[in-house]
Amino acid sequence: MPISPAGMSVLVGSIKRRSHSICRSRLFSSQPSKPSRFWDHRAFLLLAAGSGGLMLLADSALSQELNPAEGSDKDLNKKKVLVLGTGWAGTSFLKNLDCSKYDVQVVSPRNYFAFTPLLPSVTCGTVEPRSISEPIRKIVKHKKEDVRFWEAECLEIDSKQKKILCSSNIDAGKEKEDFLLDYDYLIIAVGARSNTFNTPGVAEYCHFLKEVEDAQRIRRSIVDCFERASLPHLSNEERERILHFVVVGGGPTGIEFAAELHDFVHEDLLKLYPSVKEFVKITVIEAGDHILNMFDQRISKFAAKKFQRDGIDLKTGCPVVEVTDKYISMNDKKSGKKLSIPYGMIVWSTGIGTRPVISQFMQQIAQTDRRVLATDEWLRVKGCNDVYALGDCATIDQRKIMEDISYIFKIADKDNSGTLTIEEFNDVIKDIRLRYPQIDLYLERQRMSNATKLLEGAAESGHDKTIELNIEQFKSALSHVDSQMKTLPATAQVAAQQGNYLAKCFNKMDKCEAEPEGPSRFRESGRHRFRPFRYKHLGQFAPLGGEQTAAQLPGDWVSIGHSSQWLWYSVYASKQVSWRTRVLVVFDWTKRVIFGRDSSGM
Amino acid sequence: MPISPAGMSVLVGSIKRRSHSICRSRLFSSQPSKPSRFWDHRAFLLLAAGSGGLMLLADSALSQELNPAEGSDKDLNKKKVLVLGTGWAGTSFLKNLDCSKYDVQVVSPRNYFAFTPLLPSVTCGTVEPRSISEPIRKIVKHKKEDVRFWEAECLEIDSKQKKILCSSNIDAGKEKEDFLLDYDYLIIAVGARSNTFNTPGVAEYCHFLKEVEDAQRIRRSIVDCFERASLPHLSNEERERILHFVVVGGGPTGIEFAAELHDFVHEDLLKLYPSVKEFVKITVIEAGDHILNMFDQRISKFAAKKFQRDGIDLKTGCPVVEVTDKYISMNDKKSGKKLSIPYGMIVWSTGIGTRPVISQFMQQIAQTDRRVLATDEWLRVKGCNDVYALGDCATIDQRKIMEDISYIFKIADKDNSGTLTIEEFNDVIKDIRLRYPQIDLYLERQRMSNATKLLEGAAESGHDKTIELNIEQFKSALSHVDSQMKTLPATAQVAAQQGNYLAKCFNKMDKCEAEPEGPSRFRESGRHRFRPFRYKHLGQFAPLGGEQTAAQLPGDWVSIGHSSQWLWYSVYASKQVSWRTRVLVVFDWTKRVIFGRDSSGM
Repeated sequence: MPISPAGMSVLVGSIKRRSHSICRSRLFSSQPSKPSRFWDHRAFLLLAAGSGGLMLLADSALSQELNPAEGSDKDLNKKKVLVLGTGWAGTSFLKNLDCSKYDVQVVSPRNYFAFTPLLPSVTCGTVEPRSISEPIRKIVKHKKEDVRFWEAECLEIDSKQKKILCSSNIDAGKEKEDFLLDYDYLIIAVGARSNTFNTPGVAEYCHFLKEVEDAQRIRRSIVDCFERASLPHLSNEERERILHFVVVGGGPTGIEFAAELHDFVHEDLLKLYPSVKEFVKITVIEAGDHILNMFDQRISKFAAKKFQRDGIDLKTGCPVVEVTDKYISMNDKKSGKKLSIPYGMIVWSTGIGTRPVISQFMQQIAQTDRRVLATDEWLRVKGCNDVYALGDCATIDQRKIMEDISYIFKIADKDNSGTLTIEEFNDVIKDIRLRYPQIDLYLERQRMSNATKLLEGAAESGHDKTIELNIEQFKSALSHVDSQMKTLPATAQVAAQQGNYLAKCFNKMDKCEAEPEGPSRFRESGRHRFRPFRYKHLGQFAPLGGEQTAAQLPGDWVSIGHSSQWLWYSVYASKQVSWRTRVLVVFDWTKRVIFGRDSSGM
Repeated sequence: MPISPAGMSVLVGSIKRRSHSICRSRLFSSQPSKPSRFWDHRAFLLLAAGSGGLMLLADSALSQELNPAEGSDKDLNKKKVLVLGTGWAGTSFLKNLDCSKYDVQVVSPRNYFAFTPLLPSVTCGTVEPRSISEPIRKIVKHKKEDVRFWEAECLEIDSKQKKILCSSNIDAGKEKEDFLLDYDYLIIAVGARSNTFNTPGVAEYCHFLKEVEDAQRIRRSIVDCFERASLPHLSNEERERILHFVVVGGGPTGIEFAAELHDFVHEDLLKLYPSVKEFVKITVIEAGDHILNMFDQRISKFAAKKFQRDGIDLKTGCPVVEVTDKYISMNDKKSGKKLSIPYGMIVWSTGIGTRPVISQFMQQIAQTDRRVLATDEWLRVKGCNDVYALGDCATIDQRKIMEDISYIFKIADKDNSGTLTIEEFNDVIKDIRLRYPQIDLYLERQRMSNATKLLEGAAESGHDKTIELNIEQFKSALSHVDSQMKTLPATAQVAAQQGNYLAKCFNKMDKCEAEPEGPSRFRESGRHRFRPFRYKHLGQFAPLGGEQTAAQLPGDWVSIGHSSQWLWYSVYASKQVSWRTRVLVVFDWTKRVIFGRDSSGM
């Protein structure tokens, strides 16, 4: 009896479609010898195919799997660039990439880019969620090149087969579908998740503040707490507990949220809930010794004082050890005692953790026991071809100058004299500075006008007028430079600059293949294709509430007060991703000034 | 061993607090002989109390329960008005009530009023949810009187004890708390829920469109369908299924949603999802013979034609019989066959059903087998003292004139002659018209200039110049009047007018107690305190998409097209509850024109 095409398509469908629980299992084998499940499909289909028609259908289904993206490849000459993530790094890469040169696909569980620095404002309704979000499809539409977007989560990366496994994250009560995508270049920009440090109870009872949805949930929760505390029959202790808002983490996000919350409560909510005024309390818990510790001390002290004046309780030196449904417990380092305090709502904002797909990938490429992917200075994942990682899911494993010092000396010492003159040094210093950015940071920190000053110090003990260094003196001259190596912070600014940098590298890939523009290779011959990524710090804001903002600008400029608030407004408005979001954000601010923040519980 | 106060408060707490599953059980007994659980608390506490201190604590806890609302009653002379619900009826009542005359409390699971006629616009992002919502606390704050609001759901009404049982609907993963409130006057304005007509699968698989949250879910779901259909590896049949949007119910809400969706798809989404253009389909399924059947035929026909032009499939005469995860099945009355069609998303908008608390209450007051509460013309729930019901949860059981016709004749026939002269009739006609509004509707329908024309017709067969009617002739003269009795539609307009009417009655309660302003009582002596509620129809809109709106204005005026759209804009903007929402709605419309609708999946 022949099988009808409809029946066959059901058969093929049932093979492709798998339940969500199964798809979380490993699709790709980590041992290359074992055939992956992807190939199992083909075997199964060939086996099951009995008649010619069946064979044909199965074949077409297969070729679809082999050539996964619909519409398939228009230009087979174009290399496939696959971008994972639509956060700061991914979006910045996409916006700056010349999409006509590649066949670009984007995979992200979120079909929009969110201007995350304004998330704390969303939690209190100062800014609307949609005002800081722009659909990725709109962003790529402006490029007029066909960029395909898939709303899905990447579950697994197979860098050997150059394929990824994705799963649609749209749960409509129906079974989920997985699919494979292949790539020539993979750009991993999936970001990070909140780090609970495995503290018991955090995942169950705390709010996080990474996604727009988190901010919306927090907003509802704040109003819920006020409504709940206003109900009759409650004891005053219970009202006090419900209206105790706790922020764990004294970083910029936590502090800004606490400040926003304070303003929301005092400028808007207490007018509508006057009967519970006396019960409201905000506490910030920080494991370290002071809040905003990545900022200048002046800012950190100012913030602490302002919070004190505002009645926000700061508990520094108190790592949280447990959260239960009504209590949060911490170790107070000063007293050495364990503190347990009742709470109504907790926002947990202590740092970043690894996403599951990154953990899996790190195991595959033997980057175990790490929190984020290690890349080289060109954002290439170490030990992996054609895979790039940027933003919060990666960190640049900056090469130490001391590792290469002998090679550098050898190349610099052109006449093989065994000593280095200033002239010889000056010939290679440009390449050295390009390759090892810590030199510039060191010079700046030591207030040295140029790199030859480095040698002068080391050579003083040696020669007199004409400086010549032997290998040992050269080593000692540069020995302190590596101390200036810093891991870049997990900020939007770093991610955006990395995305921009990588896009530009991709745009000039062909050109630089022929004419490399990077520094000389010291261990091997030739030059690097591109200059390494270099981060340019443009300063950082810390809004402290009450129209007060602290700004730390490049060159350790510190500004605190209303003027910084205006700077903050203008920078944050101008940095919006589109004209639409720019107008909306400014309108939201105006709206807040005129009508206050909304307290509807939705 | 004495029990510490802390221990005691835990004990009292555990009595008051019950798990949610228990609190759904009946708290009040329907038989008055059986003591309610509320009194059981007292008995239990008195029993448990062993020492004096314990007794004192238990007593204070009790008095708290007896006098439930915190802050308790400031003015014991003021009667307690308890309003259930913050929809059109409840909010309109609150806004118009002179709150200085009563001790007002409001209970609603929603702490805001929503301008529901714009909900279909929210589903497609033409208007933002917060633009049509105003916190109830803000609305009552303007009154400068202390109106207390509890965000809770009323679970049970006990009209004998004049108490209600409420449960906080804020679920923070912690146990819920129930509490009792007592009242002198209860205003039931809880609205209705969507009616599934017990169709299998509807509750599981369909979206409703009654609350702001519903609209937000629909918005996300529409974008999800487009994202899902865009994924690779799908068959075209599957894409077609996912992008098949079905609206069940051809009433104004369903039709407006279908029109909005069509505009959203064609003006915004297809630009971002061009690859799935051919698969999108919108179907409206209506059990009756045509859509918009409460409107003039011209409108209903115009809408059907416009939808046809727009490519929206109209399936009339097709009652839905079942919904499964991927198929919706209906009986096609014309062909007599059962149709099953695959779908991606269904919005169910077929009419209103009874809320559980209303069902329970109806059983208690022997109003069984009804869909909504029956009230008299003064909005008082029948068979129940001091309980009023208005809006979608109630309907006015209009008194038939024929039921009272002998009493009317008796009172009108002042000289007891057994016949009625025009003069005698004219003396009572004002009261009759007030008491039986169907007379006015009948006169209008028959194009009679005044009520005496009614008699002329009936008397033609009898006397000649001076009209005199006997009881039989009088009956026959009015026999057709009751045919004009109509149940008022479940619309915002009716609810708002009822709220306004009832508030004004409450405002002049004392005055009208002394000097009744209502019509004569025909069966008894004296006059009614107030005039009965009379609905004034101000017309109705049916937005049909593409800047086309049909308007049916009083006096059967019909207007279709752009001019009605502008009327719609101006009416809907001006009717907003506050200046804030007015500005925001107008801004949303402007924003839509400039930037289009947002398609972020959140």
